[in-house]
Formats: sequence, structure tokens, C-alpha cells
Amino acid sequence: MAKMKAAIFVEPGRIVLDQKPVPDIGPLDALVRVTTTTICGTDVHILKGEYPVAKGLTVGHEPVGVIEKLGSAVVGYREGQRVIAGAITPSGHSYASLDGFHSQCGAGTAHGFKPLGGWRFGNTIDGCQAEYVRVPDAMANLAPVPDGLSDEQVLMCPDIMSTGFSGAESGRIRIGDTVAVFAQGPIGLCATAGARLKGATTIIGVDSVPERMAIARRMGADHVVDFRRSDPVDEILKLTGGRGVDVAIEALGTPQTFESCLRVLRPGGILSSLGVYSSDLKLPLGAFAAGLGDHTIVTTLCPGGKERMRRLMNVVASGRVDLAPLVTHRFRLDDIEKAYDLFSHQRDGVLKVAITP
Amino acid sequence: MAKMKAAIFVEPGRIVLDQKPVPDIGPLDALVRVTTTTICGTDVHILKGEYPVAKGLTVGHEPVGVIEKLGSAVVGYREGQRVIAGAITPSGHSYASLDGFHSQCGAGTAHGFKPLGGWRFGNTIDGCQAEYVRVPDAMANLAPVPDGLSDEQVLMCPDIMSTGFSGAESGRIRIGDTVAVFAQGPIGLCATAGARLKGATTIIGVDSVPERMAIARRMGADHVVDFRRSDPVDEILKLTGGRGVDVAIEALGTPQTFESCLRVLRPGGILSSLGVYSSDLKLPLGAFAAGLGDHTIVTTLCPGGKERMRRLMNVVASGRVDLAPLVTHRFRLDDIEKAYDLFSHQRDGVLKVAITP
Amino acid sequence: MAKMKAAIFVEPGRIVLDQKPVPDIGPLDALVRVTTTTICGTDVHILKGEYPVAKGLTVGHEPVGVIEKLGSAVVGYREGQRVIAGAITPSGHSYASLDGFHSQCGAGTAHGFKPLGGWRFGNTIDGCQAEYVRVPDAMANLAPVPDGLSDEQVLMCPDIMSTGFSGAESGRIRIGDTVAVFAQGPIGLCATAGARLKGATTIIGVDSVPERMAIARRMGADHVVDFRRSDPVDEILKLTGGRGVDVAIEALGTPQTFESCLRVLRPGGILSSLGVYSSDLKLPLGAFAAGLGDHTIVTTLCPGGKERMRRLMNVVASGRVDLAPLVTHRFRLDDIEKAYDLFSHQRDGVLKVAITP
Amino acid sequence: MAKMKAAIFVEPGRIVLDQKPVPDIGPLDALVRVTTTTICGTDVHILKGEYPVAKGLTVGHEPVGVIEKLGSAVVGYREGQRVIAGAITPSGHSYASLDGFHSQCGAGTAHGFKPLGGWRFGNTIDGCQAEYVRVPDAMANLAPVPDGLSDEQVLMCPDIMSTGFSGAESGRIRIGDTVAVFAQGPIGLCATAGARLKGATTIIGVDSVPERMAIARRMGADHVVDFRRSDPVDEILKLTGGRGVDVAIEALGTPQTFESCLRVLRPGGILSSLGVYSSDLKLPLGAFAAGLGDHTIVTTLCPGGKERMRRLMNVVASGRVDLAPLVTHRFRLDDIEKAYDLFSHQRDGVLKVAITP
Repeated sequence: MAKMKAAIFVEPGRIVLDQKPVPDIGPLDALVRVTTTTICGTDVHILKGEYPVAKGLTVGHEPVGVIEKLGSAVVGYREGQRVIAGAITPSGHSYASLDGFHSQCGAGTAHGFKPLGGWRFGNTIDGCQAEYVRVPDAMANLAPVPDGLSDEQVLMCPDIMSTGFSGAESGRIRIGDTVAVFAQGPIGLCATAGARLKGATTIIGVDSVPERMAIARRMGADHVVDFRRSDPVDEILKLTGGRGVDVAIEALGTPQTFESCLRVLRPGGILSSLGVYSSDLKLPLGAFAAGLGDHTIVTTLCPGGKERMRRLMNVVASGRVDLAPLVTHRFRLDDIEKAYDLFSHQRDGVLKVAITP
Repeated sequence: MAKMKAAIFVEPGRIVLDQKPVPDIGPLDALVRVTTTTICGTDVHILKGEYPVAKGLTVGHEPVGVIEKLGSAVVGYREGQRVIAGAITPSGHSYASLDGFHSQCGAGTAHGFKPLGGWRFGNTIDGCQAEYVRVPDAMANLAPVPDGLSDEQVLMCPDIMSTGFSGAESGRIRIGDTVAVFAQGPIGLCATAGARLKGATTIIGVDSVPERMAIARRMGADHVVDFRRSDPVDEILKLTGGRGVDVAIEALGTPQTFESCLRVLRPGGILSSLGVYSSDLKLPLGAFAAGLGDHTIVTTLCPGGKERMRRLMNVVASGRVDLAPLVTHRFRLDDIEKAYDLFSHQRDGVLKVAITP
Repeated sequence: MAKMKAAIFVEPGRIVLDQKPVPDIGPLDALVRVTTTTICGTDVHILKGEYPVAKGLTVGHEPVGVIEKLGSAVVGYREGQRVIAGAITPSGHSYASLDGFHSQCGAGTAHGFKPLGGWRFGNTIDGCQAEYVRVPDAMANLAPVPDGLSDEQVLMCPDIMSTGFSGAESGRIRIGDTVAVFAQGPIGLCATAGARLKGATTIIGVDSVPERMAIARRMGADHVVDFRRSDPVDEILKLTGGRGVDVAIEALGTPQTFESCLRVLRPGGILSSLGVYSSDLKLPLGAFAAGLGDHTIVTTLCPGGKERMRRLMNVVASGRVDLAPLVTHRFRLDDIEKAYDLFSHQRDGVLKVAITP
Repeated sequence: MAKMKAAIFVEPGRIVLDQKPVPDIGPLDALVRVTTTTICGTDVHILKGEYPVAKGLTVGHEPVGVIEKLGSAVVGYREGQRVIAGAITPSGHSYASLDGFHSQCGAGTAHGFKPLGGWRFGNTIDGCQAEYVRVPDAMANLAPVPDGLSDEQVLMCPDIMSTGFSGAESGRIRIGDTVAVFAQGPIGLCATAGARLKGATTIIGVDSVPERMAIARRMGADHVVDFRRSDPVDEILKLTGGRGVDVAIEALGTPQTFESCLRVLRPGGILSSLGVYSSDLKLPLGAFAAGLGDHTIVTTLCPGGKERMRRLMNVVASGRVDLAPLVTHRFRLDDIEKAYDLFSHQRDGVLKVAITP
């Protein structure tokens, strides 16, 4: 049985590169040889033991690669094809998927819904920080990479671009809207770019890291508020003449930023939440207008599936958004432990790393 | 200056019937002689001092009456016409109103939005538990009562029918949906009727008062869970085979029912909140799926304006929904203090009272 | 190779019962033993040669049956299970399907969209007027029948109930809407029931057959206009006080009814078209307000997939809608030629027939 | 009675500059001194007698100016304030307006809807190609111009920017969509800009005038098809690999372009129509997929009201879209007859003219 290198969760605090068998595939699967992948903030949660996964699991959910082998029932692809797959790999055939809730796909469950069920790579099945990855329900998930796009150009599509843009989409941003985006890490920067793509014309980013604040402006932020210098809620209310924003996007995952989003929303506004929280959240009575403010709060888990990937690669190909500045560091898979060290400590102005097996 | 009787907020704990001048009207207003009105749960909040209003204010926001006089700029109506007006009286011309957020109408403010701004009767201007009421922005708010409908038949339109139905509407209920409605007071019963009207086919009401549970079934509940006999979250999950509901409607206004709504929601479901809360709310990490469950939480303040009223009176006229069982007691305006006593203590199986000046 | 009986399209004018091999199945398919099926108006188009299909094709697209055999890659079902499948059998994994356009599923095409591509039974693959039928993409399409529902109770779900209801859904009917439904054949009757389910409170049916007009009232029509007695456009405008309807549903498939729908629409209204047309349509300048009336015209092809079927069977189980009166005649498969004769000539007040192999 | 100069429709073929009394205003109106206005394609229809208006009417519906006088019931504004008003001036208080159909506002009619009813300037009341214009329902329509924006910068907001963008909005364009825009006149160019603003990443413009094709690229077109060189339907299908476009925007107003839109639409796509037609339209059977293609056709009349204007001026202020290249010629009001001559004959590469009283 052929072996491959893979980044494996051993125990809280330890993700190590080790040998593992190349995955077997079933009739609906594909085996993809990974050519580029990356590390996500969620992987750091896994590393730290904050998000539990099985010991021995290969981590990583952002694959760019080449089809090595197709399952017996898979048609419409050929070996050697360059593809990506989303972080979320819906089945396409669960009740949830058929109802459009691909990220909550509960294929195999009685009623077809499962919280986060579409997120399988590096969560419930082996992921892609490895030489090879098994892609389940391949026909729903393999998205051919258009000629002319490099691995790095499409590397953000599987997760942060899809997630960030969904913050703008779920916020139902309209032309002329005023939008606040709390935190300008990779997801927040993509949310900023997404808000611009959807027609927001006053975009206010919030962060404190100078490099991120600078990139935020390149992604479309008209104003960037440094939360270390002034209270971002006050600042945003000032910038909007007391009106508040139409849409507030939470892109960090803390109770404080979640509440701040609510505090800057105009009545009738939408709080679009992308963060992965690790504690209960609070809706303060006043900010929530005692339940009478016509507010909407919506959360979105990274949309996946090949159609989503196709659209995002279209965006890249169009040149409308240039996410190249987000890849700040590059590592070989052999050095992935160093990459984790750098990324988890947010050193050297790292935003995203490219990992090449 | 002519005098009239009116129910006036004096101080927490005291709403009294007293004499007051008949209101003057401005060019955009109408003076309506009230023929029937009612008391709302919100009025009880006002009575108890839980929702602050100015001392001396006439309370009440559910008027059925006859046009006594029209402002100089009002066209399209005639004196003597039978009309209702919604509890919410949007201006029609504020930025919020023109954007469809009639309940958050901020006419007169710089940016045109004001939390709860559309709610003026018995809140920021004199209300309708009186012989006469001034209706602001009359052309946007006076809705003629179709021939053949009695005062009592349209008495629920201004508030609880509009509010209750909006719980189903904001929940974007689809044909075949499973819906839970927490609490079967007047608002919850209307939410149940609204859920049925929108095509829900499994409706689960929650309450413990036998009369309310019985009426819930008449309004469309397929199951009614008595929260004193079993945990309603467990019960609803059992009834749905573990799947949860597509839409959960909160119609009470407590943190506990709000959380229960979240706990019974399937991934991707909508929590439609109608309650008036009096404390902060919590989103428990697990029930909120750490922000990754594609949940939507939406709050709605009673939709108003004459078009809304017209539609609701259509519903009444069609016979699709019969809210007659909700009017359980009748009082003359002279006895409104007794009515408050009965209603605020929820005695004698009271649901709604009809008050006739 | 086992043989079975099947209704086969031979040439325009001839659908005959003949012997055919029991279908083979692939890894993603299921073989279903048909226990009840029916004949659709579309089958009559096929019979007459108005809608072309391959000679030798088994017709029929409304199967109720029992799983006989499962493909090697199919999980989550068991042989012997009672199931239905929609007339439309989306793949779940095409670009169109993943984007929610299940009826236009172009699995196998380069870009994943194909007009009417989701309609395969009795159109591009063998249908279900036979003893057995192969169901493609079984995991996306097989919907278990809840205990307690008979074959006839769920027989309308695969097509006319799904289609008819979709007329109301695509029309985005709101509580209190006024809706016209042109033609009260099986689809129109289901559209009427759907309009009621979605909250329309003034429903105006149009037909001229007394039996259909009578059932229309049972399905929810508040008024039924006999187009032989008066011009339905005039009548509907009269009934609505000149305002017109919010939503007009076309359920016949003629240019004349299509135009009438447009003529009764209020500005900003929605024409929801269900008909299968056989000639070009016209948008008259005046009725179309020269393109300035904020009109929407939307067409819908019968939504399919197992989630849709599950919801529709919920509706049946709830008792909200009783479509039993629609099954007016019953035949054995052996007598299907007689059934076609009756149904295609619309004799004996036939609405729908039940065919049992 | 003070006199002013105004461009008056005399008879088909003749719009002349003449003297007229300065308008009187009612309690809800404002008198605005026009500082800049423009000529619209619709005005040319009026000039030619193709769109009938009353003889003696002042034409023009795109005012930029200064508040000269406020009606007695108007609050929230001050004389001397710089404002614009949309081409469409909804009442805010009709049933249509309260339901969000501002362009079909039927204030004063029994049921509150009137086709094109929101379009009053230069249609049913005197327009703004004059020194002064009466703005009806001033509180719903006067939109203050932000400091720093010139008259010319906001001159496109009242009509073509609002109309063009609405083509993209009604088309519900999503991130990554492929969009075709038929005709790149002023409206089409704004539709192209709107499509880009909404996130379309493949935008295909169609025209044949070199200057317009060049500006189309500046507005966001990725491809511009010259319909004189090749069949645009073929070309667009080729550019999309046979898939067709997600949204097709008609911005000319001919049956031919309308049909072409339908022919390039993918199944499930949206035809968003902006054109003012002068003859019946046809839906060809094949392109309309016999009514089974899940197509949507939507028409939109220029959204108006002060909230819309505020948003559009936000877009201008943000610099996201620069419509300056559209103003190709400038005239004094005294020379408006020359301006009509140039504009109606489309000479000298004219796109839009600025007229200054």
C-alpha cells in the first residue's frame, strides 16, 4: 500500500507531518494529488484543541490539485485534470443539500440535516494537508481550474474567499449600502472585498494591525477604524452621522465584536456573522431594541460545491478582486510544522501561507 | 375647547380614565372618533412602568372608528367614513419608510431612521383609549373598513393580527414547513394562524393554559405541547424525529423561550422573534452551532400603514381566519380601569377585551 | 432477461402496452416496482406527437412503488421500501442542481445546464407506466412514503401537486393577496389549492366545466368565472374594483390565457406561468405597460427531488389539502390504452386516473 | 404673476422654449429653482409624438436645483438647500407606495395603483426643463445633495443611473454571474456599471457605435459585441461556451433586442427589461422553452423617491462609478431647442447633455 506524507492531528498542541497510506476511494469519490494547499484559522483551533477532531486525522480543507483517480461511478472528469474542491463538500443528494443548505448536509442521517455536516475535510474525514486527498461525492465537488489561473490564484477559493464573500451575500448588501466589517484578517478582508463586489459604497473596516488596515483599503474599505485608538462603535456611528450601518459583518469570532456589530446597526439592518465562536453570545437589550428593531442576524458557513467554486474562480479570472496580497508566505509540505508555528503565532505579518507538497 | 374621556398614564401602576381636550389636528392629520379599541400586552408593560412613556399620555394603539375631521392637506377620504389605523403609523415619506422599514420610521430625524419610530400611538403621541384620537400622516394610515365587517371583526388588525402574521412572514415559511410557536397568547395564536396561512403543515404550539391550548388547535396547531408536563425542546425534537423545525416563532418575550426557539431549530432554520424583551438575551454556543449553523434570527415590529391594514381586513373578510374567539370580554370606556385590572392579571381566561367609548 | 409490461410510444397517435425487458440499473440507480401511476396532460401531448420523444420509449413520469433493487453505490435505503419519485429527477450534482435549478439539470453536459434537463422519466429515459422503472440518481430522488398514506394519496405529489403549488410559490403569494388562476384542470386546481396554502384570500378561478368549477371552490377558489358566460378579464377587473390581481397563474398553456393573465395583473404584479405552450406568445404593448409596469413573468417546471416530495407528502399527511377528488377513474395497467382514450378525450368528467400494474 | 422660461410640448415634432408662470405650490409641494437638468430618450419619444402628453406641458424629469419655497405642511428642509428629485416622484402614502411599488403609485385613485403613476414630471404634471419646477410630495422626494458633489456629478441620478442600476438589481445579479447588456446608450451604460457594482464578473455589452463600445469597457464590460459585425446571440453563446448568461438586460426597447435577451439566457436565467417599447413583444416558443425553462422576465420603471436618490449620490460620492464621461455636451436653457436637435438626431457622439437655466 502506497504511503504519503500528511499533517496529522496527534493531540492538542501537536500537528505533525507523518506517513500515512494513500487513501482508498469508493465509487463516488476521487483521489486528488494535492499541488497547493494552505492553513486556515480553524486549523489553528484544531491544533490548540479548541475544536475537537479525531486523533490521527489529516487536517486541512483547502485543496488545489490534480485528479489522480476517479471512482467507478464518477463521470464527467478525466484523470490529470486540474481541480479545486471547496472546504465544504456537500453530497448534493441529502435533503439538506436538495433544499439548498449544502453546508448543513446530513447525507446518511435519517432526516438529512446535520449541523456543519458539509464540512468533512479535516473535520470528519481526512483533509488535504497531505500529498493526496480523497474527495467525497466527487461529481458535486470537483471544480476544474480554468486555464491560465495559477494554483495560488485559486487557493483562496475553497474557504476564505467563499466565506468572506458569503458575509456580504448573506447580508443582502444593496447598491449604496454602508457596511462595517469587524476584523480584517483573511476572512474579514475577503468580506470587505465581497461587500465592495456587491455594491456597498461606504465600507468601514475595523482592525489594528497596520498591514491589515492597509490591505483593507486595497480590498475596498473606504474607512479603516483602529480599535486601539478609538471605540469602533463610536467611530462608526460618527462616520455615519448617527444612522448606523445597513449591514455589519462579524469576521473575528468574539462576543465583543458580535455585540459591536449589533450596536452599529441601523434599525432594520442585518448582522452577518462569519466568526467561529467559542463561547455563548449576548444580545444586549438596548442594542437589540428589546426585539423590536426589525434586526436580522444571519450566520453562514462557507458555501461549497463545484458551482460555488466555479463562480469564485470566475471572479479571480475577471480580475475584479486580487487576493494575491493575502499569500504572504510559502512553505513546502515538509516544512508544514514551521508553517503552523508561524501562522498560529501570527508572526511576520502573515496572512495566508501557501503549502506545496 | 371640547373635552373627551381618555385613559391616561399617570405613573407606574396607574392608568386612569380622565378628561382631556379633544386633540387638535395639523394639515396631514385626521381626527378619528373611536368606536372600539382594545388593550395590548404592551399597555400592561406601560402600566407597570416596564416600558416608559410620558406622564399624562393617552395610551392605546388599536383604533377602530369614524373619521370626524380631516387635516387641510388630506385628500381621498371623507368625514363619517369607518376606518382603522395600524398600531404603527409610518409617515410614508421618511428615508426608512421609503426603504420599506415602516416600523422604524424616523420622520423628522436627520437620517430618517429611528428605532421603533413608527410606533407613535400611546408611545410618543396620544393613543386611542379615548373618545377621539389624532391619526398622524392620515393618508398613509387610514384604512377604510369594508362594508359588512363589524368593529370587533377588524379590532385585531391594528396590532396582534399584524404582529402575529409577521412572525410567519418574517420566518419565510414555505409550503410543507414544520413550525414551532412558543406561547399561545393573543400574539402567539395569531402567529399560529399566520403559520397555517403561509403553508406550514406541521405546527407545534407551546403553552400551558388549557383554553389557549384549545384555541391554538382551532388556529391551526397540529400539536400543542404543555411546557408544564414536559420539556418543550425535548418534545419538539421528538415530534420532528430529531430534525428540528424549519421556523421557530417566539411570541412571549423571555430569554428562556428565545433560547428554546434556537434549540429546536434545524440547521439553516429561522428564528422569528416577536416578543418584547425586558432583559439581555443569550445565544448558547451549542444551540447557535458556534456561529456555523446557517441560522437566521429575525425580529419584527408590527407592520402598519393602510396597505397592511387593507390586506389584513381582506383576510378577515375571506373567512380564512376567524379571530372572534380571541375577544373574550367587553367593557365600556368608562370601565377601562376594570378592564386593565382583569387583563393585566390575566383573569377569567381573558385573551383580548373590546373597549367601546 | 426478465420481461415486463410497459406503455410504449410507437408513433404519433399510438401508445401501446407491450413487453419490454425489466430495466438494468447502474451504481447510482434504483429499480422500483411500480404499484400506482397516472397519466399526465403531457403524456397526451406525447401521444399526439406534439411533444417529441423517441419511438419505443416507455412513457409516464409519476411513480409510486416499492424499491426492488438498489444500485451498488446507493446507501440509505432498503429493498421493499415504499417510495415515490418526482416527475423531475435531478442529479443533485450538476452545476444547475447545485445552484438550485434542479429542473434544468444538465448532468453530463459541459456547463451543467440543460433546458428541462431534470425531466427524464418518459422524456429522455424510460418512464413509469410499466411494471418497473429505473430511477436515476436514486439518493437524490427516492422519497419514502410515510406510514399511513395510501398510493392514491401520494399519487399527485410527483407532478401536478408539485407543479400546481409551484405556481403559487413562484408567484410569491403573500397573505391577503388576490390571485387569479386561469383554467381549473388538475394543474390549475392544484395551483388554486397552492394559492390558498400560501395565504391568498381572494382567489378567482377561471374555467367552464361545471365539475371543475365545483372542485375549484373546494380547493379554495372564492370566485369561479365561467369564461363562456363572460369575458374573464372584464369579470376579474370588476371583481377587483379595477385594481387587478397581485398574481395571475396560467395553468392551461395557450397564448390567450397567457395574455389574459397579463391583462388582469395590477402594476407590479406577477404572472406565474405553468402551461406547456405549443406556439409563440405575445406580450401586448398596453397590457405590458410598454415595459414600464414593474411586471414579473415567471415560468416554473415541476420541482422534483426527494426533499420536495417529502414536503408534499407532509402536506397530504397534514390534511391541509385533500386532492382525493382529483382521482376520478381507476384502471389496471393492462387497460392503459383505454385509460389514454378516456383521458385524452376528457370524457366522463375525468380529472386524473390511477393506473395499477 | 412671475414668469419663467420653460421647454413646452406644443405638438408632435415641436418642443419650444417659451414663457410660463412660475408654478404655484400646495401644502405638500416644494418649488425648486432648477440649476441643471438634462434631456432623456423619453423626452425624444414625447417630441416625436410617440409618447403622448398634454399640449402645453413643460417637459423634463431630471432636476438638480435649489429649494426656492416650501409648502406649508413640509418640514425637514430649508429654502436655499441644494437638492435633486427622482424622475419618479412617489407619494409615499398610496397603497402602491406603502407596498413598495413606488413607480406605480396611484395616489388619488380608489385602489392606489396606477401604471407608471409615479412618473409625474413632464408626463402628468409640468416638468423641469424650466427655470422652476414644482416638486409634489416634497418630503418623499427632495434629496439634499451632499457637499462636494457638483450638479453634473448628480445629474444622472434622477433617471438613467437609477434606471440602469435597477436593471442589474431586478436581475438579482450574484457574485460571479455572467451578464449581457443589450445596447450601450446612456441607460445601457448605467446597466453595465450596475452589473459590475452587483458583482457580475463576465459582462458582455452589445452595441455598434465605437464611442459607446469604448465607454462600455470603462463602465465594466469585459466584452463588447458589435452587432453589425456578428450576430450577438451567436457571439454571446460562443463567449459563454454554449451556457448562456445568468442575466440579460434589455436597454434599448425593441422587440428584436428583447428576443435576443431571451435567446442568450441560460435555463433559469432572468431577463431584466428596461426598454420603453412601442409595439407588442414576442416570446418565441423555443427561446421560451415552451414555458418550461424556469425563466423570469422582469421590467422595472426607474426607482425614485429621496432614499433612492440618497443611495445613488452615495455611489457617486464613493467614486465607485464615474459617469462623468456620459455628459458629452452642455447647453444653456435658452438653447434647449438646439440641444433637442442634437440629442434627438444622436449627432456628434452625444450621450447626455447638461442644460443650465
